[in-house]
Amino acid sequence: MGHTAVISANESGLLTREELLARLHALGEERYHHRHPFHLHMHQGKLTRGQIQAWVLNRYYYQSRIPIKDSIILSRGDAQFRRAWRKRIIDHDGTQPGTGGIECWLQLAEAAGLNRSQVESCEYVLPATRYAVDAYLKLVSEGSFLQAVASSLTELFSGRLIALRMDALNKHYPWLSGGFAYFKARLTQAPEDAEFAFAYVYDHARTREEQEIIVTSLSRKCDILWAQLDALYYAYVEPGFVPYGAFQLTEQDDAR
Amino acid sequence: MGHTAVISANESGLLTREELLARLHALGEERYHHRHPFHLHMHQGKLTRGQIQAWVLNRYYYQSRIPIKDSIILSRGDAQFRRAWRKRIIDHDGTQPGTGGIECWLQLAEAAGLNRSQVESCEYVLPATRYAVDAYLKLVSEGSFLQAVASSLTELFSGRLIALRMDALNKHYPWLSGGFAYFKARLTQAPEDAEFAFAYVYDHARTREEQEIIVTSLSRKCDILWAQLDALYYAYVEPGFVPYGAFQLTEQDDAR
Repeated sequence: MGHTAVISANESGLLTREELLARLHALGEERYHHRHPFHLHMHQGKLTRGQIQAWVLNRYYYQSRIPIKDSIILSRGDAQFRRAWRKRIIDHDGTQPGTGGIECWLQLAEAAGLNRSQVESCEYVLPATRYAVDAYLKLVSEGSFLQAVASSLTELFSGRLIALRMDALNKHYPWLSGGFAYFKARLTQAPEDAEFAFAYVYDHARTREEQEIIVTSLSRKCDILWAQLDALYYAYVEPGFVPYGAFQLTEQDDAR
Repeated sequence: MGHTAVISANESGLLTREELLARLHALGEERYHHRHPFHLHMHQGKLTRGQIQAWVLNRYYYQSRIPIKDSIILSRGDAQFRRAWRKRIIDHDGTQPGTGGIECWLQLAEAAGLNRSQVESCEYVLPATRYAVDAYLKLVSEGSFLQAVASSLTELFSGRLIALRMDALNKHYPWLSGGFAYFKARLTQAPEDAEFAFAYVYDHARTREEQEIIVTSLSRKCDILWAQLDALYYAYVEPGFVPYGAFQLTEQDDAR
């Protein structure tokens, strides 16, 4: 594969591997949700237990849709691609009941004091969380295959955010630290996944326009993550207007 | 899960497990493609090498779409379902290049004297093969989840057909026998897969109407397999009108 065999990156206007990676990292620096005020509050220890619960409960909806997203992507790849990509589904679903990333997220929910079946039902998720996550499924279903794969490239940034988050959660919310198995697993999974996805999109973008599509798709994915935290912030931090039917902070929590 | 905890099968009008299975087997006896004239010719040793090649080449299109079909179904299930169903994708794609059911089918193609890349390109497939196989993908995408799972139940019948086919191919077309790895693997895979799929649809059909949907879905899948052999028979056996652009028998083969 590869344009590089035919013409050099410079002649064609194509970004080199390093240039493309730098573009993606620059975008992440600006738009990835590590900069979102909700995460900044979290890392500074400013969130209440209820606000942490709201995050864990809403984020479960995202977590539970990841293997669906990956199955959709799987249905669009060839055998070689599927052999590499299916690992993600196994990572999230586990090898038997009680294992895998979704289960680990439920353990985090329990450490946060939430009821497992309340979380699993997804009944109390903010509508805006649902819209954003469903937009992700739509992106990988209806976008080009290159867009679908590129949308996973937030994994380029997630390792650093997870390491930072684990330190912060440990320090400020020690009652949560029994539920870190998900984060620990992602520290090794995410970089492997990002490496494959980046190599794939780099090798398959044959024009500068296609390289720009990679950048745009990552940007749209950053929006999807950001919108989830906007919704959380609005409902549970400030102004704190919780939509009817969504998860409610307890009175004790409000009185903090 | 199940209705059986609440009301007995008889009171509710629901078929028992055995009755449903008997209905499916009766349908298979009538409509599964083991009765198709193309397969009867094959088993009686009446096909030429070129006609066998046409079958292998066209059927590759079906084989290559199976993991796509299974990824679509995967994207519609929950974690417990996905853990059981993803095995099918691994069976077909293998654990590394050069393994798995699709690769084994390519080995069969080579044993039949076809060129691997000609087969992999899917360029010479009959349009009617493509329409039938694509209808299968549409069925599992757009039908209910119960319909999607039930459409795989032809695996209830495939073990017997494959055993019969291996004997017949061995006897009448011994030059093909180096390519039987696919069939050998399916002899154990198909019954396991069928057992899971049947248990799933039986447990999840909560009304008699839903049980009838299972039967109808299996019937539609039988149609999809049958239509592929109709197209082969029409083009390569009788009357032998090959659509423009599709795989051609060699003159030597015609002169048999």
